[in-house]
Amino acid sequence: MALLSEGLTQVLIPAAALIGLVFALVQWFLVSKVRVSGEASDYNGYKDSLIDAGEFEEGVDNFEVSVKVAEIQNAISVGATSFLFTEYRYLGIFTGVFGFIIFIFLGSVKGFSTKSEPCTYNTGNICKPALANAFFSTIAFLLGALTSVLSGFLGMKIATYANARTTLQARKGVGKAFITAFRSGAVMGFLLAANGLLVLWVSINLFKLYYGDDWEGLYESITGYGLGGSSMALFGRVGGGIYTKAADVGADLVGKVERNIPEDDPRNPAVIADNVGDNVGDIAGMGSDLFGSYAESSCAALFVASISSFGTTHDYTAMSYPLIISSMGIVVCLITTIFATDLFEIKNVSEIEPSLKKQLVISTVLMTAGIAMVSFFALPSEFTLYNFGTTKAVKNWHLFFCVSIGLWAGLVIGYTTEYYTSNAYSPVQDVADSCRTGAATNVIFGLALGYKSVIIPIFSIAIAIYVSFSLAAMYGIAVAALGMLSTIATGLAIDAYGPISDNAGGIAEMAGMSHEIRERTDALDAAGNTTAAIGKGFAIGSAALVSLALFGAFVSRAGINTVDVLTPKVFIGLLVGAMLPYWFSAMTMKSVGSAALKMVEEVRRQFNTIPGLMEGRAKPDYATCVKISTDASLREMIPPGALVMLTPLIAGTFFGVETLAGVLAGSLVSGVQVAISASNTGGAWDNAKKYIEAGGNEHAKSLGPKGSDAHKAAVIGDTIGDPLKDTSGPSLNILIKLMAVESLVFAPFFATHGGLIFKWL
Amino acid sequence: MALLSEGLTQVLIPAAALIGLVFALVQWFLVSKVRVSGEASDYNGYKDSLIDAGEFEEGVDNFEVSVKVAEIQNAISVGATSFLFTEYRYLGIFTGVFGFIIFIFLGSVKGFSTKSEPCTYNTGNICKPALANAFFSTIAFLLGALTSVLSGFLGMKIATYANARTTLQARKGVGKAFITAFRSGAVMGFLLAANGLLVLWVSINLFKLYYGDDWEGLYESITGYGLGGSSMALFGRVGGGIYTKAADVGADLVGKVERNIPEDDPRNPAVIADNVGDNVGDIAGMGSDLFGSYAESSCAALFVASISSFGTTHDYTAMSYPLIISSMGIVVCLITTIFATDLFEIKNVSEIEPSLKKQLVISTVLMTAGIAMVSFFALPSEFTLYNFGTTKAVKNWHLFFCVSIGLWAGLVIGYTTEYYTSNAYSPVQDVADSCRTGAATNVIFGLALGYKSVIIPIFSIAIAIYVSFSLAAMYGIAVAALGMLSTIATGLAIDAYGPISDNAGGIAEMAGMSHEIRERTDALDAAGNTTAAIGKGFAIGSAALVSLALFGAFVSRAGINTVDVLTPKVFIGLLVGAMLPYWFSAMTMKSVGSAALKMVEEVRRQFNTIPGLMEGRAKPDYATCVKISTDASLREMIPPGALVMLTPLIAGTFFGVETLAGVLAGSLVSGVQVAISASNTGGAWDNAKKYIEAGGNEHAKSLGPKGSDAHKAAVIGDTIGDPLKDTSGPSLNILIKLMAVESLVFAPFFATHGGLIFKWL
Repeated sequence: MALLSEGLTQVLIPAAALIGLVFALVQWFLVSKVRVSGEASDYNGYKDSLIDAGEFEEGVDNFEVSVKVAEIQNAISVGATSFLFTEYRYLGIFTGVFGFIIFIFLGSVKGFSTKSEPCTYNTGNICKPALANAFFSTIAFLLGALTSVLSGFLGMKIATYANARTTLQARKGVGKAFITAFRSGAVMGFLLAANGLLVLWVSINLFKLYYGDDWEGLYESITGYGLGGSSMALFGRVGGGIYTKAADVGADLVGKVERNIPEDDPRNPAVIADNVGDNVGDIAGMGSDLFGSYAESSCAALFVASISSFGTTHDYTAMSYPLIISSMGIVVCLITTIFATDLFEIKNVSEIEPSLKKQLVISTVLMTAGIAMVSFFALPSEFTLYNFGTTKAVKNWHLFFCVSIGLWAGLVIGYTTEYYTSNAYSPVQDVADSCRTGAATNVIFGLALGYKSVIIPIFSIAIAIYVSFSLAAMYGIAVAALGMLSTIATGLAIDAYGPISDNAGGIAEMAGMSHEIRERTDALDAAGNTTAAIGKGFAIGSAALVSLALFGAFVSRAGINTVDVLTPKVFIGLLVGAMLPYWFSAMTMKSVGSAALKMVEEVRRQFNTIPGLMEGRAKPDYATCVKISTDASLREMIPPGALVMLTPLIAGTFFGVETLAGVLAGSLVSGVQVAISASNTGGAWDNAKKYIEAGGNEHAKSLGPKGSDAHKAAVIGDTIGDPLKDTSGPSLNILIKLMAVESLVFAPFFATHGGLIFKWL
Repeated sequence: MALLSEGLTQVLIPAAALIGLVFALVQWFLVSKVRVSGEASDYNGYKDSLIDAGEFEEGVDNFEVSVKVAEIQNAISVGATSFLFTEYRYLGIFTGVFGFIIFIFLGSVKGFSTKSEPCTYNTGNICKPALANAFFSTIAFLLGALTSVLSGFLGMKIATYANARTTLQARKGVGKAFITAFRSGAVMGFLLAANGLLVLWVSINLFKLYYGDDWEGLYESITGYGLGGSSMALFGRVGGGIYTKAADVGADLVGKVERNIPEDDPRNPAVIADNVGDNVGDIAGMGSDLFGSYAESSCAALFVASISSFGTTHDYTAMSYPLIISSMGIVVCLITTIFATDLFEIKNVSEIEPSLKKQLVISTVLMTAGIAMVSFFALPSEFTLYNFGTTKAVKNWHLFFCVSIGLWAGLVIGYTTEYYTSNAYSPVQDVADSCRTGAATNVIFGLALGYKSVIIPIFSIAIAIYVSFSLAAMYGIAVAALGMLSTIATGLAIDAYGPISDNAGGIAEMAGMSHEIRERTDALDAAGNTTAAIGKGFAIGSAALVSLALFGAFVSRAGINTVDVLTPKVFIGLLVGAMLPYWFSAMTMKSVGSAALKMVEEVRRQFNTIPGLMEGRAKPDYATCVKISTDASLREMIPPGALVMLTPLIAGTFFGVETLAGVLAGSLVSGVQVAISASNTGGAWDNAKKYIEAGGNEHAKSLGPKGSDAHKAAVIGDTIGDPLKDTSGPSLNILIKLMAVESLVFAPFFATHGGLIFKWL
């Protein structure tokens, strides 16, 4: 048995989660200090005033501007909240219907019998009835969905709370603004990590009241948690992604290209929709997404453990290894955050990006030590793991290697992503250079860059898979995924930092703040672009590992011991699965394109029909643009969502578990490539444009300034990249995870009733 | 035994091949009649004069123009020949070195022993030594390489012979021009199909003199033929693709975008390089490519048959089933061609595309009957086929279904491709419409279209695979591939027709012929764009089936009976394999981009420094542009070529046959998607541009005319699509086939000595 006692485990996990929550609240408190109530606190009805009427280091702005900032922040926050609530109404219906489907499908496995059954793996014992599993899976699904929605919503709230504060702090210097944006990111990161862990721990303990010693049924039902988390994430990512990019592309095409006005100019009617979009897409979507990955990898690991020796010997501490790793992650990330907020100070623009990157390194190094500790204390020195019908003898230090290799593979992917998307290195500079000959070469070079950026991440993932698979079978993969996500709080912090800074810049522009302040927020934003790309790299890398782990768990649960490519059932699954990311991308890209066309028409209409708009004498009609984005995203998120949710059900029911296994493997190996290349191509185009705009060296100056032919070509690339990097790319990692977790949840049904067509043939 | 006797089989196959050759010569003869020698025959030293000084229906051109046509044709022909000879020098070195590697690797399997060995499959018998197989594999490789090079070269010769004749005939009407271009395409199609069949048949019979009854060794060695064919095709496609697109992109970027002069304007210094490129890329490259597919699917089928009952009972006729199918294909295509050349007459521009499409339908319907005949006469009514360690009982009508489903799947893919790339349908029109809002939306819509166009082809291929695999195991897949390629002569004819018409238009423009004639060639060319896309669809679809068949043959030869995705060795292979198409595309796209940049600089330099060039008073320096394309393509084809050729060697030697099997499956399922989407995206952009230029309806007119903002956006899309559709896309199907056939040839070595790293671990 493990050195750590069961009682202590039951204290440590919730304690870590609570520490995370408290830390998040402390950070929030520190961010909230950015205000002076004074005489302005009731100005214009903003109780929670943002207006800092005190003295500034550089005194570059006045009271009126501050009021404007508060107004804009309010508009963004209201827009985002209203969109999310509308979205949640749709999601509520979906959740109800799908919860019902889960219950019916799983209940039908044994004909809704209420009799207990002999266990599948823990042979000789009696397990709870399939109907109970159907019921608890549905509950877990609902809990996961709720937690996911909550994660996204809280993230959005924090981000819209923080953006204006970052703008205001930018008046005092870039360091202060950085700290505000970063702390806000940390609030989101810790809230999510702690919340996810806590809900999972509570659910397990509540479910245990019913299941008792039937851990097979218990952890099988818990997988519903992952499904709920990820299905919300899918709609969040797709809906939010379409929202934000329709607005962004629409705003840019008319504003920057046709009217030659700067980004985020308040005269642009789509500008509020664009800023709302950052919060509902990049923040709420990303929050749900990473929460989903975390929930799924935990569930995959728990499920495999439950049918291994941990489960049969009822070693609760060892069983909870995945949760303890996450608990350790929260503590490690807490220490890491203090490095950025208290130990180092940003005094210069050039220090921003290194400081964010340092976060990754510090958390990875500390976490490696943490993993060693956890593996030593929480695991028996030797045990066996389930391995597709056989068992595998494993030592505790094997698992240390599995988790660590996942963690370090994440770092490698992060750094590779940075290399290919930051304009400090030659790849992006080459793309910028190709703008000399126009948009066509820019696009050709950008696509080539995206394709090339796949190589190193894929090798890293492959090595991580090989090592962890060889050492500890599918459990190894699951904990490797967990390792990559163990520093999720830090990852989310530096990730959320990006859109917050982006919004801060938008607010500064819209409020008509000085050029100097806009430059500061631009510098924050440029670093944010890179960290956003790094975040996406993490999300995709971990999704690959998670879905492989879920795939393994599905195969185990479906009772098949080989997935042989040389059988036609599997091969056609593989081929069609590899096609799904393309189908999905076609839908999402087309949706963004169509919505953007509508937005363009509307923005053009307003410029043409509202007198004095271009001169700044009249206000644009922001609400209509918000409505276009809202309607488009809600309508267009349904077909891709249906594709992802229905594919496993159709493949499993009609073609059976082998074909479904093929589909999962195919969509995994193909989707990862499409996702990485799409994200990095988009990130590179964005930063190539920023490189030309910033004109930081001789080369960049020769391409610029803003408005030059090369810059125009760069803007076209940036616009094309928008749906790639913020809609289809990041949604794809949800596609591969979600299909896998859905297959796992429905595995008992498919194994019993699936494969209708082949049975008929 | 089969109804058809061995003796008759030995007569029918070469007879069909000879009929094909004779038919090709007749068509050539008919094309060559387009000339009037008269007084101009020695003009300017062109013995084989093209100058038709007789009377024309519309008498729109004069003698001087005709002379110019002859001059231009000569320049293109000389350029293409000189490039191909330079390329062949490189290929000669490669072939020598790689032939040596084959001999050494395969010879080392049994330590270069000259002793006969017990057979692997035909147990109880004695087979020839491994050293003999090494020797004959090398010979077959050299023969395949030679035939492939010859196919490409002859195709190029015919195309450059036909382009000017098509231009001249265009003066007499669109019908005459169409027949000339189509007949020339047929020359190429029949020459290739007949030549490929004949060389294969001769080789088998010569090899048999040594091998006698050891058919295992005989057909194992013959697989070298496929490897030789495809490796030449790879370099031909990549080298030719880079050549043509560097010139095309370079010419367009300066000519159309900056200088606002029409396509193919003789003032553009890159115009000759562009026209040469069509012949070395689209013609020679495509010829080698489809020949490679044909050779490989035949070899895969023959190899699997040799280790099945046909091989052990030495039923020569049944064994030759793949060759008899191809023989029947030649006869069917011959009849089909007569429909286009003699039975229907083109009187109107609108009849061109339907006439070409009718070719596909007629050949498919006739061939279905042909397959039924062949299956009835050439096969025993019942037999067994090898199926990964076991055998499968099969009836002759099963094979009829396998071949037919491949054939019809090809037709479905062809029609789907047409739907997504022809501007007669809504997908391309939507893309054209998106040009309203600029290049960015055009690119977003185009990419989405390409992704979407993958869906139906993939389902068709999946169904073909499932049916043929279920009916006749891997042999079923191989003959399904052969079915898709059985009408290769017709496929190549309508495919080669495209670049010939493109060149004809170029020559008309350069020779300063009237607007009316240019319009006629443009109409021919627009139909050619679609048929080129259909041809690429066929090439990719057949490549998918071929590589699956080769994959199966490889697995059989390597002695593994399952390729289980649930083993880490296989899974990492799958993941890395799925990445290879991206790596490869990154290389080729970047190569085209860089070469195009150089071309742009040169073209700009000439426009800026040669006085009177824009005014047409001075001649540009065509030769420098030809040199830039030549140098770039020869230098840049090496890294992607090395990636493809070395991957199986490295994976097999260091990681073993399981990982290699994973790599092959991964690259297959991922590469097909990338290839189809790249080809169709490019084709759609090209035709969206043509749609706007032609202004054939109200919608198109509202977007045009040439030079409008929407048209400019469309030109950018077209330029981006160039490397996608003519370089990386079509090369990818060679990547997946070539890696599979190479693995098959080296399988004995990998099975004996491979997997060094895992052995060491």
